[in-house]
Amino acid sequence: MANGNHIRHERMNYGHIKIYAGNGSLDLAAEVASRIGIPLCERDIITFPNDNIFVRLHSSVRGQDCYAIQTTAAPVQKNLMELLILIRTLHQDSAARITAVIPYLGYSRSDKKDQPRVPITARLVADMIEVAGADRYIVYDLHSKQIQGFFSIPGDVLTAFYILSDYLKSIRPRLQSPVIVASDLGFSKNARSYGMALEAPLAFIEKRRTNDIHTRALTLIGDVQGRDAVIVDDEVDTGGSICEAVQVVKQHGARDVYVAFVHPVLSADAADRLAALPVAEFITTNTIPIPPEKAALFGGRLRILSIAPLLSEVIIRANEGRSVGELFNE
Amino acid sequence: MANGNHIRHERMNYGHIKIYAGNGSLDLAAEVASRIGIPLCERDIITFPNDNIFVRLHSSVRGQDCYAIQTTAAPVQKNLMELLILIRTLHQDSAARITAVIPYLGYSRSDKKDQPRVPITARLVADMIEVAGADRYIVYDLHSKQIQGFFSIPGDVLTAFYILSDYLKSIRPRLQSPVIVASDLGFSKNARSYGMALEAPLAFIEKRRTNDIHTRALTLIGDVQGRDAVIVDDEVDTGGSICEAVQVVKQHGARDVYVAFVHPVLSADAADRLAALPVAEFITTNTIPIPPEKAALFGGRLRILSIAPLLSEVIIRANEGRSVGELFNE
Amino acid sequence: MANGNHIRHERMNYGHIKIYAGNGSLDLAAEVASRIGIPLCERDIITFPNDNIFVRLHSSVRGQDCYAIQTTAAPVQKNLMELLILIRTLHQDSAARITAVIPYLGYSRSDKKDQPRVPITARLVADMIEVAGADRYIVYDLHSKQIQGFFSIPGDVLTAFYILSDYLKSIRPRLQSPVIVASDLGFSKNARSYGMALEAPLAFIEKRRTNDIHTRALTLIGDVQGRDAVIVDDEVDTGGSICEAVQVVKQHGARDVYVAFVHPVLSADAADRLAALPVAEFITTNTIPIPPEKAALFGGRLRILSIAPLLSEVIIRANEGRSVGELFNE
Amino acid sequence: MANGNHIRHERMNYGHIKIYAGNGSLDLAAEVASRIGIPLCERDIITFPNDNIFVRLHSSVRGQDCYAIQTTAAPVQKNLMELLILIRTLHQDSAARITAVIPYLGYSRSDKKDQPRVPITARLVADMIEVAGADRYIVYDLHSKQIQGFFSIPGDVLTAFYILSDYLKSIRPRLQSPVIVASDLGFSKNARSYGMALEAPLAFIEKRRTNDIHTRALTLIGDVQGRDAVIVDDEVDTGGSICEAVQVVKQHGARDVYVAFVHPVLSADAADRLAALPVAEFITTNTIPIPPEKAALFGGRLRILSIAPLLSEVIIRANEGRSVGELFNE
Amino acid sequence: MANGNHIRHERMNYGHIKIYAGNGSLDLAAEVASRIGIPLCERDIITFPNDNIFVRLHSSVRGQDCYAIQTTAAPVQKNLMELLILIRTLHQDSAARITAVIPYLGYSRSDKKDQPRVPITARLVADMIEVAGADRYIVYDLHSKQIQGFFSIPGDVLTAFYILSDYLKSIRPRLQSPVIVASDLGFSKNARSYGMALEAPLAFIEKRRTNDIHTRALTLIGDVQGRDAVIVDDEVDTGGSICEAVQVVKQHGARDVYVAFVHPVLSADAADRLAALPVAEFITTNTIPIPPEKAALFGGRLRILSIAPLLSEVIIRANEGRSVGELFNE
Amino acid sequence: MANGNHIRHERMNYGHIKIYAGNGSLDLAAEVASRIGIPLCERDIITFPNDNIFVRLHSSVRGQDCYAIQTTAAPVQKNLMELLILIRTLHQDSAARITAVIPYLGYSRSDKKDQPRVPITARLVADMIEVAGADRYIVYDLHSKQIQGFFSIPGDVLTAFYILSDYLKSIRPRLQSPVIVASDLGFSKNARSYGMALEAPLAFIEKRRTNDIHTRALTLIGDVQGRDAVIVDDEVDTGGSICEAVQVVKQHGARDVYVAFVHPVLSADAADRLAALPVAEFITTNTIPIPPEKAALFGGRLRILSIAPLLSEVIIRANEGRSVGELFNE
Repeated sequence: MANGNHIRHERMNYGHIKIYAGNGSLDLAAEVASRIGIPLCERDIITFPNDNIFVRLHSSVRGQDCYAIQTTAAPVQKNLMELLILIRTLHQDSAARITAVIPYLGYSRSDKKDQPRVPITARLVADMIEVAGADRYIVYDLHSKQIQGFFSIPGDVLTAFYILSDYLKSIRPRLQSPVIVASDLGFSKNARSYGMALEAPLAFIEKRRTNDIHTRALTLIGDVQGRDAVIVDDEVDTGGSICEAVQVVKQHGARDVYVAFVHPVLSADAADRLAALPVAEFITTNTIPIPPEKAALFGGRLRILSIAPLLSEVIIRANEGRSVGELFNE
Repeated sequence: MANGNHIRHERMNYGHIKIYAGNGSLDLAAEVASRIGIPLCERDIITFPNDNIFVRLHSSVRGQDCYAIQTTAAPVQKNLMELLILIRTLHQDSAARITAVIPYLGYSRSDKKDQPRVPITARLVADMIEVAGADRYIVYDLHSKQIQGFFSIPGDVLTAFYILSDYLKSIRPRLQSPVIVASDLGFSKNARSYGMALEAPLAFIEKRRTNDIHTRALTLIGDVQGRDAVIVDDEVDTGGSICEAVQVVKQHGARDVYVAFVHPVLSADAADRLAALPVAEFITTNTIPIPPEKAALFGGRLRILSIAPLLSEVIIRANEGRSVGELFNE
Repeated sequence: MANGNHIRHERMNYGHIKIYAGNGSLDLAAEVASRIGIPLCERDIITFPNDNIFVRLHSSVRGQDCYAIQTTAAPVQKNLMELLILIRTLHQDSAARITAVIPYLGYSRSDKKDQPRVPITARLVADMIEVAGADRYIVYDLHSKQIQGFFSIPGDVLTAFYILSDYLKSIRPRLQSPVIVASDLGFSKNARSYGMALEAPLAFIEKRRTNDIHTRALTLIGDVQGRDAVIVDDEVDTGGSICEAVQVVKQHGARDVYVAFVHPVLSADAADRLAALPVAEFITTNTIPIPPEKAALFGGRLRILSIAPLLSEVIIRANEGRSVGELFNE
Repeated sequence: MANGNHIRHERMNYGHIKIYAGNGSLDLAAEVASRIGIPLCERDIITFPNDNIFVRLHSSVRGQDCYAIQTTAAPVQKNLMELLILIRTLHQDSAARITAVIPYLGYSRSDKKDQPRVPITARLVADMIEVAGADRYIVYDLHSKQIQGFFSIPGDVLTAFYILSDYLKSIRPRLQSPVIVASDLGFSKNARSYGMALEAPLAFIEKRRTNDIHTRALTLIGDVQGRDAVIVDDEVDTGGSICEAVQVVKQHGARDVYVAFVHPVLSADAADRLAALPVAEFITTNTIPIPPEKAALFGGRLRILSIAPLLSEVIIRANEGRSVGELFNE
Repeated sequence: MANGNHIRHERMNYGHIKIYAGNGSLDLAAEVASRIGIPLCERDIITFPNDNIFVRLHSSVRGQDCYAIQTTAAPVQKNLMELLILIRTLHQDSAARITAVIPYLGYSRSDKKDQPRVPITARLVADMIEVAGADRYIVYDLHSKQIQGFFSIPGDVLTAFYILSDYLKSIRPRLQSPVIVASDLGFSKNARSYGMALEAPLAFIEKRRTNDIHTRALTLIGDVQGRDAVIVDDEVDTGGSICEAVQVVKQHGARDVYVAFVHPVLSADAADRLAALPVAEFITTNTIPIPPEKAALFGGRLRILSIAPLLSEVIIRANEGRSVGELFNE
Repeated sequence: MANGNHIRHERMNYGHIKIYAGNGSLDLAAEVASRIGIPLCERDIITFPNDNIFVRLHSSVRGQDCYAIQTTAAPVQKNLMELLILIRTLHQDSAARITAVIPYLGYSRSDKKDQPRVPITARLVADMIEVAGADRYIVYDLHSKQIQGFFSIPGDVLTAFYILSDYLKSIRPRLQSPVIVASDLGFSKNARSYGMALEAPLAFIEKRRTNDIHTRALTLIGDVQGRDAVIVDDEVDTGGSICEAVQVVKQHGARDVYVAFVHPVLSADAADRLAALPVAEFITTNTIPIPPEKAALFGGRLRILSIAPLLSEVIIRANEGRSVGELFNE
């Protein structure tokens, strides 16, 4: 019978950490592996002439704790299929545990039915990741936090908020009466977090369709006059919202303008459009790689903060069975 | 071989509509059945002395198209278990199709992890409804639209927005320069819809924790001075946010105040607190039944709009395989 | 190639034992944790004003072997939801293994369709426990052993039979020609086990509906004249069967009467009714906590035997990968 | 909007009834089809020289309502695999609905763990039927009613109790002070049903292991002296229990003895042993076919009642979406 | 009770046929719809600037029998995702039944592990189609027939063999002593079917790696001297095998050469390479659309046979619950 | 934060290797256990008089790495059910991991629909193994490699090709101008592997149905004149193909004939028929046990090579998380 002398076991042992990179996150994966102190695992990920993607691992992953790192920005379909096939390959090769690490989750803006007869593609993507064989997932700053509920497997939804807000706090001394501006009403709550971090008030851009279907009325709610405006968002896609926001705050008398966002999607000619704006600095991360030629357009005004230090620590903790939450002061 | 003479079949036939009511939605279900022109199906839903819930159908549902109507407001656990057991009973009795009709989905505010080590209970609830045997679901105004993605079965997420906004439009002539006020930043986008319906500007209440952990700073963003304020929200729980919002808009010079919300949760002493406010009219629906004694507190200032006309039409269309979306001008 | 020199590994390592208590089993869980020699894990399980249950763990369970202890007696719905939400919380927080420990499984008497159009709710409950995320379960004395087949996850169905029969054997010297009486025909086989343990004959109470629907004929099959009668059952709910059984055996000349049962459900005024019976001693366990005020009604005639010594040993063995069956002389 | 003029649809249409017979239930299936007024569907079910079973349907079942009738008595494995392969064949051929009709469910006595490290094979069988592709099932008199909870698909658990008890009532006039005798304590509750149907008292045979492991003590609980004894059970396997029961009731002075049971498993030399007993009549059904040479051993004392009239009616009602329960006076 | 007068019902009613086209099969889908005599359903399938695919149906599909036609040749990832999102959209919109019609199933050559640590991607694709929500599938000439076993949903694996062999039979009079040549050993069995249809002998091309890793030895097994050679295969990808085969049969004295294959994948510069070969005629189908500029390269030597007549008939039969097999003389 | 000093963990620990034998593979399992250096685990596998199979483990497998070895040749149904029940028993007893080791997978020739309305039974078997509770599987030389895609659990498809080809290479010096003959076109690609291993050319037997349905035309494609013919196949069932092949090669002037195949199914009188052939040596393995009386028919011409050395090594590597692929020079 039990007598209080039970010897405590260690945590569940999931085997060695094995880092695999999809072609969408080669640099990030290399940086993560290097920080953990292990080599990136070798594998082939090839697209055949018939456009079929082929994956082959160079060594066995039996009984190992595998992490497949792949962002799913453009080319979205190719990156997603690479990830799914890689996961399935690890599964069939009897990995002990497979974690899909997706710095930017494509289709995450398709997270609700805001009109009839459209899909919730983000749920489909979650289902596909699960059916491929992932046991866990790690993602950064979902378009809405509810997307975590699309997965039935457990996962870690990480945030680059602290990376961005720590940087903003570091330049706080040179900002004049800053105001946080949400370029979209859907980002209001997150804007408040920035506001609290910088001890700054909030303002919002409201967009409203008008009778003339081709135009939208833009309203600034809140006060930016004579203040430095820090426009915040989760991602920048074509850059349209940011361009409008910069224009509006300038019209309302803002002083310098800063733009901070987690995911540099930068579709179409977004980089050109942003670079042409009267913005003092753009602050973002490497959840999506920015091609050097696009980055060059910004002169020195683009600051890319790396998520690798945090991500590598999270992977180590996941492997060792230690808390991830406490990394976020939570 | 096909030659263009294929005779078109009718839609899938799911059998007769059979309406079953949980104890949480007796009146609503009766109204729905009446509007459809069929009797409410008889059943026992009894709680035994040992607190076990027992369900028994009075007639067979083989091959029929069954709708289990049950709100899941307080008593939440009892209402939810009644619903689940009812669904399972219909499933075991070989119903052709089972639709869970849940005017108010409990736990829908637990739709994300906003701190570590807490659950996303709304996903658990969705899973339970599916595992019980539901083939489809119908719900009203989820706390976030993303919750639809928690279900893998198809469903209809209906909205009482038009019911509320149509009413507001009907009293629009007597409102003076109305402004729509979102009592919570998370409701900003919905507030805009009301703003567009009433052709009114927006204002927001921002709540922010202060250094003193026991107090929160309330800020009004936007202009309400001399205007009639229409405070909108999806649900009213303890009423705290509404009380604060009324106080703030009054402080900022609002004229008359109206409060509109879909789900009258009215927990604890919310009815008493609301009734004591300087509000011209409270407008809500019957997604959750309001006990007469609570309703009486409001004098004539509480207007409850019924979702039954719309819901009964949706059920008929679901049964007959006709579009539901076009009911919503979509 | 294999050569007979394979080095044997230890068992699967599921991590540390982590004991979490639902509000229905606080004392039992504390006793179990104490016997294992570990602290009970801290967590919040709160019911909000809107009757939603909220769970928050105070520390991470990544890679740990978690046990959620919660009886599902009244309030059944609340206790069950607490358990399910707790399991889901552990699942989302990446526990290595989750075991639902349910000393009394509510709804276990709803284990078959004994009339048309009623559900098998015990199967629904099993499905809910699995969908919440449990990997294993531990229960005590199911109403029927077949309920184990309702689960697809593995589990341990433990019995308090030895605890009760060992106690009865300890008082065997003072019993006069004891006879085991099954108060219900459905308990006949279990009664035989008690008969064999005490080397005593059996008798049965047969209940039969009569033409007058409001009365039932009670028949004693077997002989109790001049003997001490030990009435046995798996649970006592409203106490009706026990009251009848005591009356019948007394009518047939039984000497002293003892009543032994595993689960003290004690619904409604069962405690009052039992306490009023001419019974020498009631013997039961703590699978369900008995409120002190109810226990007090029995004077010294209520003996509550603890399942904690056995349960704590079972948990240790489950964690260490050792046999549980051998604890039961099996 | 709904206005009470909704036109009621007919039930779900599952297509034509298509009856397929496994080799274990050829005669029964033919009788059922004949009663429904349709031909038995042609198919090959062949065992190849390598002992692989091969199934081929002679015509398409697309969009049809298919019933695969197959008992799973000996040869159990072959009969079960025939059933599973037949179900899968119907599934792959796009049947609209597939019902497994299993007059005798093999392995149903393996429905609980009554010792450690043994399986609950009945649950495995239920899982196999579901994974093969069955949408529903129909079975007769399960060893325990709880087995219905092993299935997650809906089904009809039918009983031959009324067939047997109606026959017994028809011969009631010539029975002298009949007493119902349960040959096993596990059948106590069912015995009571017979007792109520015949308005007769009950008696039980209790078997108990003694210190000498090779013998069992048999006790008769209740009174049979000078009465006609009707021994009842759900199935007769090797016939051991029945032989013992006949011996015991005769020793205790029973007059004529009748034996009634649903499933004539009659393993090994059971038919020879039963035929040699001093029993007036054996009453059973055709859930399992009795080979003519075995039936001949009983002279005229074996009465086989057919389940086909009831089963064919159940299938029609299942197809037409009408109540099955009301067939059983329920 | 059943009396042979049961009225037969019609087949299961799955609703109207609704044909939806993915962008990979626009022409084929239009031809199929036209042959059935119904309009192609309108929908948007758009790729946004961020490379996310968006689907919107123009009308409701509630209770309808929907067919999503989409080949999954290059661009494979885009075509596959379009198909999956379309299926999910139909599922969420409560279609009665969804059939994925995939004339060419991409990744079907990744159907086995022929080296370690590579995936079976065809199984992953089947899983994805199922998880998206397809109830059935229709495909043409899988690379191996076993792939049908990768699906758990039922489906129709159609073949264009009869379309091709009927054409070959129609030109048989002008062929001189034809011999069927399999360009790959894996196609041996199918080659025999062509041989039997044309009453012609067989020959095979064997490829074998040599010590020099960069070259392969080609052997012709069988006799082609002075005969017209008909080279057959299931698909032509880069055209390498066909080029080699033509060269080998010419070297061995073949007279005219014909090349017949179902799927014109024609990757990279395959069309150029094929067009340059001394081949009398290339016979293929429209399971994959061939761009006009590629088709033009062949002069008049490319014959594209349409699968639309057969496919439209199969869809009608699937909808009406009639046999598809009998279309294939089976 | 991560700093490159992460300590590497060992592989996932699945516990001790526990080998359980089904009655179909007693000798093989004993040989495997002996080579690993562990005892075979004791268990009962009994067939009761009612033809129900019963399994009982003699000791606990909690937290252990279990391997159930059972071939599924004749008696196929019994062997398969033994395997499934054994797997389920291990699952219910909380094994850490269960691997089904199936040297010969029955029903693997039912891997495609080569005519309408027949099942793909091999997929059904895969589903049954998964639903029983297996976590992994190990099989030898599937009839087609695609069958691996029928499983969603990971597994190792091993081959006895090297065992057979190594033996053939060892006798290569005494073979005269050997030619590899595929007795069936479906085995063409595997024949090539033998051809490459022995540096020998290929020949094929083509069977073709003729107008007279009862006869088949046999054609030899390739050259065997004056050569030693090595006929290869994956399995020998009734021996018909081999008998024909021997006859054909002899007719075409082959010198000595050797026959090599992995699985000695040897149905019906296959052993007699083979033994009567003018064959120098039959080479096979022990994936299926050959009864001594059958083996004796061959005189010294039957060589049975054991798969146990390789299989035991594979099990050790699976347990230790080391590569299996590298065992096969891959």
